[in-house]
Amino acid sequence: VSSRLPSRLVDRLRSAAGRSAVLTDPADCWAYGYDNSRRQALPDAVVLASTHEQVAAVVGLCSAAGVPLVARGRGTGTTGATVPVRGGVVLSLERMNRVLALEPRDRLARVEPGLTNQALQDAVAAHGFFWPPDPTSAAVCTVGGNLACNAAGPRAIKYGTTRDNTLGLRAVTGAGEAIRTGVATTKGVVGYDLTRLLIGSEGTLAVITEATLRLTPLPEARHTLQATYRTVGAAAAAVSAIMAQPVTPCALELMDRGAIDMIRGYQDLGLTEAVSALLMIEIDGPRHGLGQAVDAVAAAAAVDGLIGIARATDATAAADLWRARRALSPALRNVAPKKINEDVVVPVSRIPALIDGLGELAARHGITIVNFGHAGNGNIHVNLLVDPDDAAELARAERCLDETFDLVLRLGGTLSGEHGVGLVKREFVRREIDPASLRLMRDLKRVFDPNGILNPDKSLPD
Amino acid sequence: VSSRLPSRLVDRLRSAAGRSAVLTDPADCWAYGYDNSRRQALPDAVVLASTHEQVAAVVGLCSAAGVPLVARGRGTGTTGATVPVRGGVVLSLERMNRVLALEPRDRLARVEPGLTNQALQDAVAAHGFFWPPDPTSAAVCTVGGNLACNAAGPRAIKYGTTRDNTLGLRAVTGAGEAIRTGVATTKGVVGYDLTRLLIGSEGTLAVITEATLRLTPLPEARHTLQATYRTVGAAAAAVSAIMAQPVTPCALELMDRGAIDMIRGYQDLGLTEAVSALLMIEIDGPRHGLGQAVDAVAAAAAVDGLIGIARATDATAAADLWRARRALSPALRNVAPKKINEDVVVPVSRIPALIDGLGELAARHGITIVNFGHAGNGNIHVNLLVDPDDAAELARAERCLDETFDLVLRLGGTLSGEHGVGLVKREFVRREIDPASLRLMRDLKRVFDPNGILNPDKSLPD
Repeated sequence: VSSRLPSRLVDRLRSAAGRSAVLTDPADCWAYGYDNSRRQALPDAVVLASTHEQVAAVVGLCSAAGVPLVARGRGTGTTGATVPVRGGVVLSLERMNRVLALEPRDRLARVEPGLTNQALQDAVAAHGFFWPPDPTSAAVCTVGGNLACNAAGPRAIKYGTTRDNTLGLRAVTGAGEAIRTGVATTKGVVGYDLTRLLIGSEGTLAVITEATLRLTPLPEARHTLQATYRTVGAAAAAVSAIMAQPVTPCALELMDRGAIDMIRGYQDLGLTEAVSALLMIEIDGPRHGLGQAVDAVAAAAAVDGLIGIARATDATAAADLWRARRALSPALRNVAPKKINEDVVVPVSRIPALIDGLGELAARHGITIVNFGHAGNGNIHVNLLVDPDDAAELARAERCLDETFDLVLRLGGTLSGEHGVGLVKREFVRREIDPASLRLMRDLKRVFDPNGILNPDKSLPD
Repeated sequence: VSSRLPSRLVDRLRSAAGRSAVLTDPADCWAYGYDNSRRQALPDAVVLASTHEQVAAVVGLCSAAGVPLVARGRGTGTTGATVPVRGGVVLSLERMNRVLALEPRDRLARVEPGLTNQALQDAVAAHGFFWPPDPTSAAVCTVGGNLACNAAGPRAIKYGTTRDNTLGLRAVTGAGEAIRTGVATTKGVVGYDLTRLLIGSEGTLAVITEATLRLTPLPEARHTLQATYRTVGAAAAAVSAIMAQPVTPCALELMDRGAIDMIRGYQDLGLTEAVSALLMIEIDGPRHGLGQAVDAVAAAAAVDGLIGIARATDATAAADLWRARRALSPALRNVAPKKINEDVVVPVSRIPALIDGLGELAARHGITIVNFGHAGNGNIHVNLLVDPDDAAELARAERCLDETFDLVLRLGGTLSGEHGVGLVKREFVRREIDPASLRLMRDLKRVFDPNGILNPDKSLPD
């Protein structure tokens, strides 16, 4: 045992979770020490829990020993939130992947946290339902990770985020105490809302062992629009106009000129030079009337500066319209192996000011910035492209990022819409949250985790 | 000054809020000591705040002096949540009734807490929007009260509760510290979710001085259905069937046989003896396709035991269908001047078991029970009709109520869907919330309100 943990603790973890469920060989542990932020740290041990009771026992042991514990799903997060920067125990929940109950008549599913988002969608689709959170990583990310980060995705514009689609939780606090929060119904006002407090807390307050999720009926049909504009301001005006009429799309995604130029060089998507911004719009709902709903959205999208709107009413044609958006990620990887990808949010009406401001920052700092994202929520993915071997460029990018955050806050926005804080945005939190609120948050953390073992050094600044 | 408060504190409250904004004459104070629960207590002083700064000063003074402070809107709550049972200061927010900002392009309004729900609806309707929470008291209740109780109403089935429709808050903690929570956008994952923690906390954690509310576009049209059934089980099966198909109604209200019998004796509504349950169903949305959406709901409602479905496609015909439901409250007042009105919730599929169980309890305890409510959320208003002069009946009703709560919890439900806990359900909270969670809630209360001045003896049990 090469672990820096006391051997008695390792023995007790083995008693609690089973011998084969505790890894201490660094060769085994490394795989549990990184996420999609490309940050990495070696845990002293990894415990692969299979039950709520094992989680309670493991957290209790770590709490008593004062050993850091980081709960983890599949490590698809982008902020280093699951990187065990202080060593200790990584508690992997990947084996807790059961659907415990599926109640179509009550529009709910009760699941374990290690279930992947896709496995959940498959299970509930068989009954005519879906669970709205749809992060890009849905195929592999877990429901527990979605809960920890309050994950979202394109559909959030119409169907809300994880927080809006979860009814109740079972969890273990940092003191090792088991709790149940929330209800199994869409209403409930007894006691404080611990459910939504735990959601988005990045594993710093409690380890979620079970979730009661609110399901939404699958829409009958979906149509897709691709609208192109002469300026990003025109596209942003279209976003506002679309959001001001009654039909809320189920996706309203923006690509700016930088993003379009990137894919222009990569493959021919039939976008002329005049196209400076592009909206991908999806409208779902009952088949009857969907055509008219799409007409209403298309009419709202037809602001000054519109070049054209292409429409798809079947899956094949829709896939063709999405080609441009889908080409973007590989193109980005090709052009810039390193990118700083932020997911800032501003009120929809401030998107033009954000894009203009980012253009000014890009020019001033000599950094290429590519913007796309969930415009209907004002959630823009700002990508600063940098050469990782160019130290001067990296330094300029860091300054540019710093000013980007100030710009976002000046526009009434927030520093993260769905990726979260984790390690990477921690020191910027102070700019957004006032000192009194931060103090309350730290005090709340102490209430749930008196020994400070749960995911230390994450989410809140020092 | 007949107040039991130290005269220095009264002087300081006057300096903080203005001489005429502080009432200490009991004749003036009594009006601020009751709510719709018919409970009453005399505050030592009433402060009518006009600004956030005044609220911060008043709370700070009471905190320093250890004097209880109860924030209050218009007193329409039904649980005694604003009754100042320990005396002290009632802080009325009725003068803080401004719309601070209305941003249709961002689908939000920023308002003060004393604004009435109706005044808000009027202000935003002019821009084509509404705010979903629609309690029966909407004409007079305040947004601040809606936030404190997490108010809802019929529309919650489709559009959610107050918690689902609020983006951010400005508030003053029990320590007198000003905080801002949440964001001005529909996404945001920086820091813990203090917004939803404060919503529904019944003024026990902080006094809300400003709210950023999420607005929803007004639907183009609405159709109404009245479906009658031979048994309440059939009506409940229809509710489940309706909720299992993709068109979510914007109201799905149930009346049981007891409720129908009550209005039968009161006015002729054309409901035959065979009718044992009735559903009022409303479907809203874009005009195009609405007819087909209504057809889909009507088809789902046509379960075994259906007697008939009446349909209204204009406001006059709809008002006629709603006559039965509207006749219920006056009929109830007529028949039973005192009723114990609970608003329990069960998963939709358990409504038949709830109604059956209530029938059994009513028979066993010799109490008339009338049930109606927001069936789409499983939120049933259970009315125990009692003669206030009959002590034996009152005692039987209390025992019946006690067993009603046990029944609801056995069915996986919750003790309150929208009215809250306040004073009247306080001692039942322990049956629903586990000891560890309750301990956490009390600790959270201490974090926000270290001197325990905010609305003492409410919401959480001793």
